[in-house]
Amino acid sequence: MFFEGSEKKAEIQINANKLSLLNDFDDKFWSALVAHSRAKILSSIRNKHCKAYLLSESSLFVWHDRLLILTCGQTQLVNAIEFFIQKVGVDKIEQLTYQRKNEYFAHEQPSCFGDDVKILNKYMQGKAYRFGEMDSHHNYIFHQDNHFIADKADKTYELLAYQISDHASKKLTTPHLSREDIRAFLALDTLLPDFIIDDFVFQPYGYSLNAINQHHYLTIHVTPQADSSYVSFESNLNLLELAPKILAILKPASFDLLSFNEFTFQQKIAANIPSEYVSKSLVNKQLSNGYEVCFANFIRPQHQFTTPAQLTITGENHAL
Amino acid sequence: MFFEGSEKKAEIQINANKLSLLNDFDDKFWSALVAHSRAKILSSIRNKHCKAYLLSESSLFVWHDRLLILTCGQTQLVNAIEFFIQKVGVDKIEQLTYQRKNEYFAHEQPSCFGDDVKILNKYMQGKAYRFGEMDSHHNYIFHQDNHFIADKADKTYELLAYQISDHASKKLTTPHLSREDIRAFLALDTLLPDFIIDDFVFQPYGYSLNAINQHHYLTIHVTPQADSSYVSFESNLNLLELAPKILAILKPASFDLLSFNEFTFQQKIAANIPSEYVSKSLVNKQLSNGYEVCFANFIRPQHQFTTPAQLTITGENHAL
Repeated sequence: MFFEGSEKKAEIQINANKLSLLNDFDDKFWSALVAHSRAKILSSIRNKHCKAYLLSESSLFVWHDRLLILTCGQTQLVNAIEFFIQKVGVDKIEQLTYQRKNEYFAHEQPSCFGDDVKILNKYMQGKAYRFGEMDSHHNYIFHQDNHFIADKADKTYELLAYQISDHASKKLTTPHLSREDIRAFLALDTLLPDFIIDDFVFQPYGYSLNAINQHHYLTIHVTPQADSSYVSFESNLNLLELAPKILAILKPASFDLLSFNEFTFQQKIAANIPSEYVSKSLVNKQLSNGYEVCFANFIRPQHQFTTPAQLTITGENHAL
Repeated sequence: MFFEGSEKKAEIQINANKLSLLNDFDDKFWSALVAHSRAKILSSIRNKHCKAYLLSESSLFVWHDRLLILTCGQTQLVNAIEFFIQKVGVDKIEQLTYQRKNEYFAHEQPSCFGDDVKILNKYMQGKAYRFGEMDSHHNYIFHQDNHFIADKADKTYELLAYQISDHASKKLTTPHLSREDIRAFLALDTLLPDFIIDDFVFQPYGYSLNAINQHHYLTIHVTPQADSSYVSFESNLNLLELAPKILAILKPASFDLLSFNEFTFQQKIAANIPSEYVSKSLVNKQLSNGYEVCFANFIRPQHQFTTPAQLTITGENHAL
């Protein structure tokens, strides 16, 4: 069974003098928003800064002055964003960024990044980039181009792991795993001390986690099936520093790092990325919204021959 | 301007006791066949063994006992193959292989590999494989599964180069290049001594070449535009041995090697691939039709940061 783990992601910052996303909108509003992307809310946790919704396809985080939403599979996140813009008003939006990772099964997606940007362009001017080569891992980023300049302290990180080890894939596709089993395998007690955790084990496999602690958040989404495995981490914790622990557990054949406003990216990867990996792509740019964006894709060179995947052609294209 | 250079490819071997593809079918037949894939014949050359057609999208080679066809862009090669099967009869076919390289713009394709195999499965039993990882360069191969066993001397090679150097891309997108300019740039006089050559320069750029010499053939297709550049070589000349010359000219960031019945693949890549490249994928298998297939993808690790590609969102999705 194949599943498109790669997420679409949007972050919207609003004018907190005009409204509070946390106080002025109820669960019904967020349910409706999420439904526009064809996902639904499974559960939520909150602290005084943030409410974190676990979705049927990934996650939504709401703070007073911003929201972050990630959706995977065949969801249409841009439709949820259009719903937000129409309901809240583009005049309340200080800054919007929209991202999309290249997909395993691009031909199965209901839209491509260009289609999505055309919808956003109905409401705002923006710039669009591709970080990474066309024939390799890459991340599309659209951002609103206006007066907004990001706070340099506003840092976020993504670690996206592909083709995790056979051991990790087998472990994470074991039938009837509990959330405690998966938390233990991912060593979350060391990654996330003192966090409030909300997690869900999908059937027959798959795992999602939201975690919050004061102003910190982390979300993890696991698509563990061999051959198209994908594990994503998104956080304002420094995932470059946590990378050695994560990589030691998952042992991916390939992974991406993406950061916003990490100004010592190069030094951090030199210090933290195991020498068995080589950098396929290194891309950075200071966007006109003030964010310094860095993207890197690493691969582990292969020295032994393996056998090809034998394919079963079924009624579903997913099998390819 | 973006163009999908990646080819679909089919090779069909027929029972030469029953008919000759070279003698029993005229240009009108091959024109009709090619039209079913949505391509057309531009020109042709021949010797006593082979007729080679240059197509609007790639190439068709016809021998007495086999045909080889490659089509790129948004063509539907499988429809041309279905036309062949219906016209010639599946009982005349000894062996059919159908291949498809992962595309830059999979969402723009009218079908995926699985769709194509379903059509072939209407006429024959077969096996399908993916050589290379889902999240990386890979080549899908379907082959008929019957009594056929390939001659060990039947060797073919592919070298598929991605993201050629800025210098090569600039040179090959220079306006008003002549075929002589491109032949000189590709050093074809050293690659192809004594070959009959048929080549075509597309507008505003792009280049295709067929070359034959006795039983030898080579076809080259150049999609030179920066950011989605692609140059393919397919031949029964030993492209592993020619790789150093080709790589020195094109300096691609990534390339694939694929061979049928090259039994010293590992030694040949050790001897011929420059040390600046590392192997991302190494896959091999002896198929049940007797062909030993080897696939390798090489990348050049990147050590310097580059800037992202800024995207212009137009009415055409091709811009992404």
